[in-house]
Amino acid sequence: MGQQFKNSLEMHGRFHGKMETVSKVSLSNRHDLSLAYSPGVAEPSMAIFENPQSVYDYTIKGNLVGVVTDGTAVLGLGDIGPEASMPVMEGKALLLKQFAHIDAFPIALNTKSVDEIVATVKAMEPTFGAINLEDISAPRCFEIEDRLKEECNIPIFHDDQHGTAIVVAAGLLNALKLVDKKEEDVKIVVNGAGAAGVAIVRLLLDLNFHNIIVCDSQGIIYEGREHSMNPIKHKIARQTNRKLLQGTLQDAMKGSDIFIGVSVANLLTKPLIDSMNEDPIIFGLANPNPEISPDLAKEYGVRVIATGRSDHPNQVNNVLAFPGIFRGALDVRATEINDAMKRAAVYAISSLIHEDDLTEEYIIPDPFDARVVQAVAEAVRNAAIETGVSKLQQCRVMYATK
Amino acid sequence: MGQQFKNSLEMHGRFHGKMETVSKVSLSNRHDLSLAYSPGVAEPSMAIFENPQSVYDYTIKGNLVGVVTDGTAVLGLGDIGPEASMPVMEGKALLLKQFAHIDAFPIALNTKSVDEIVATVKAMEPTFGAINLEDISAPRCFEIEDRLKEECNIPIFHDDQHGTAIVVAAGLLNALKLVDKKEEDVKIVVNGAGAAGVAIVRLLLDLNFHNIIVCDSQGIIYEGREHSMNPIKHKIARQTNRKLLQGTLQDAMKGSDIFIGVSVANLLTKPLIDSMNEDPIIFGLANPNPEISPDLAKEYGVRVIATGRSDHPNQVNNVLAFPGIFRGALDVRATEINDAMKRAAVYAISSLIHEDDLTEEYIIPDPFDARVVQAVAEAVRNAAIETGVSKLQQCRVMYATK
Repeated sequence: MGQQFKNSLEMHGRFHGKMETVSKVSLSNRHDLSLAYSPGVAEPSMAIFENPQSVYDYTIKGNLVGVVTDGTAVLGLGDIGPEASMPVMEGKALLLKQFAHIDAFPIALNTKSVDEIVATVKAMEPTFGAINLEDISAPRCFEIEDRLKEECNIPIFHDDQHGTAIVVAAGLLNALKLVDKKEEDVKIVVNGAGAAGVAIVRLLLDLNFHNIIVCDSQGIIYEGREHSMNPIKHKIARQTNRKLLQGTLQDAMKGSDIFIGVSVANLLTKPLIDSMNEDPIIFGLANPNPEISPDLAKEYGVRVIATGRSDHPNQVNNVLAFPGIFRGALDVRATEINDAMKRAAVYAISSLIHEDDLTEEYIIPDPFDARVVQAVAEAVRNAAIETGVSKLQQCRVMYATK
Repeated sequence: MGQQFKNSLEMHGRFHGKMETVSKVSLSNRHDLSLAYSPGVAEPSMAIFENPQSVYDYTIKGNLVGVVTDGTAVLGLGDIGPEASMPVMEGKALLLKQFAHIDAFPIALNTKSVDEIVATVKAMEPTFGAINLEDISAPRCFEIEDRLKEECNIPIFHDDQHGTAIVVAAGLLNALKLVDKKEEDVKIVVNGAGAAGVAIVRLLLDLNFHNIIVCDSQGIIYEGREHSMNPIKHKIARQTNRKLLQGTLQDAMKGSDIFIGVSVANLLTKPLIDSMNEDPIIFGLANPNPEISPDLAKEYGVRVIATGRSDHPNQVNNVLAFPGIFRGALDVRATEINDAMKRAAVYAISSLIHEDDLTEEYIIPDPFDARVVQAVAEAVRNAAIETGVSKLQQCRVMYATK
């Protein structure tokens, strides 16, 4: 791992970052310039002035995502600031290109003010076809996303929330098939009430999981708890744990079927797992080390384990979701990414694994499975059209390249 | 021209805009991703966190320019809005790449508020190595540039002002050699007190031209004039026209040596030109049709005429200035583009034409003369180092490509 990291540093230094901007048209002589720039460029500009929607025809907007951060929750590194977040944002932008032919710019902001971040993104709306919020700390991320969705007419998607939630939900649906349990019957413990934890809970509720207990570092979250709360935890408290259970993670785990951790490494002990129902399912998403190692989990009798790690089976990797989601949303000029589109992405990912192929080691497709982005994009396009949030009624290939 | 414009529209529509983002590194397998993204990307991120200046080593920031507009003064088209400005901004970004290996993003803002534009650009500062302000209407452009220069630690350059001024000044110095007149002796009339007019006046004053009369659509600007003024015109009024001449453009032109128009087409009549001194020099920069056509100017006895047109000699084309200026500023990590750097660019451009080669038809180098960007960049680098605004003491090649 040490050597690999040094290679990464060396690679970033050799190229001075990872991305570049290039032209799709020739610019090598006077004639080229007169078409791509003055005076010819006046023609597409006037066409857009006369018909604002044609900005999608004549500019990069329709295939362009802004990857926006304030650098407050970068990877597992925390608040390292906007400059230090740039390698991650460049990487994210390039994943969109690699997996979904989407052009993307990183935009790292040197403000942590919710008002200023909202105002800045809103001001940039004419440039982008969609915005991916990235690595913004909770609970600010919830307010920023909500306000931008309200005020902008392009899709706003906080991947750390929804990308993670979608892949978790897809894997979970497949895991349930293996153990032959139903959404409405299982008891789930979600440990962690940050961006990913909250989004997972909300998506699972939307997918008919009813019995969810959420814990944070202070224990079980229940309606009426007064310490260590924030507006989003209050909302979650009203939607989960309807028996108003109080206590510790240990209390929550008793009789549960599924544990989903977005918390800290090596948290799960044998007694905790022993207190779960038969055929326990564990999603241990702490990075880089999960809440329990896959090997130990198996030793303790866990039936299915998924983690964030690429060196173990069942990797929860956002790259399974966000490229196809943005591809689908851009293809039909969706004005938002709504719950129906997120659910469609979940089912698209989970159903890529045929029931005959499902095993404890294969509940989530491989990140390099080329079918994923196509399936997700198609499902998202259809859901956008069905829910009336698309400005085009059919997919349009927006990614002509040189 | 009609057919050419149609070709431009067709071209913009065929590719859905002109630019794309691409990766400089391979991203095709798990190992690639572990270097370019998680977990390896943590290493450059932590290196930048520990040493903020290394953002220039490990990210695109050091070679990245933001091309920022609010769409209020686009080409000769005026306030057509941010969406309609996008084809122009994309084109501008690509010129930086084509002429100077600089990566650039267009950022079109849907606000005309000076405060909001300043706040937005300031928020994006961590992302960019420099900012090119583009097509922002006067007099707002002056305040926006001044405030951003004050508040940001990266170069801020409003090309419509300074790019134009630099090329005009370079051409003017060469024209004076042809007519054997000196900076300090000539009388100049500048018609137009918008972005370009004001910047031309300021740069000429800085280059030892003393006798300048500025006119706007209301006639001569003089200290004490009360109608149709703004803060920048008040400043200009105190620095020019020290004899406090009042009256019309006609009054200003009498006994002048040089006319520089950034105003309207076909303004200059024979009597106006007849009222000038011997060997008149005309810069007619109105777009697309100049203040007087080159053919008519010659007929009326104008010795040297320059215009913005590519189909006539002596084209004042900003592409002679801005690529080399940004290249030079980025190469030495300049924190600003100061007056010394602008003067250096003027002399670099003008001195590319050897005195033996100077003719009435060749006072300004060709935009495709490959020597220009090199010469300007070198002069700008040296001026930045000499004036102490560079963070590197020697040029560093920042533009490795795939």
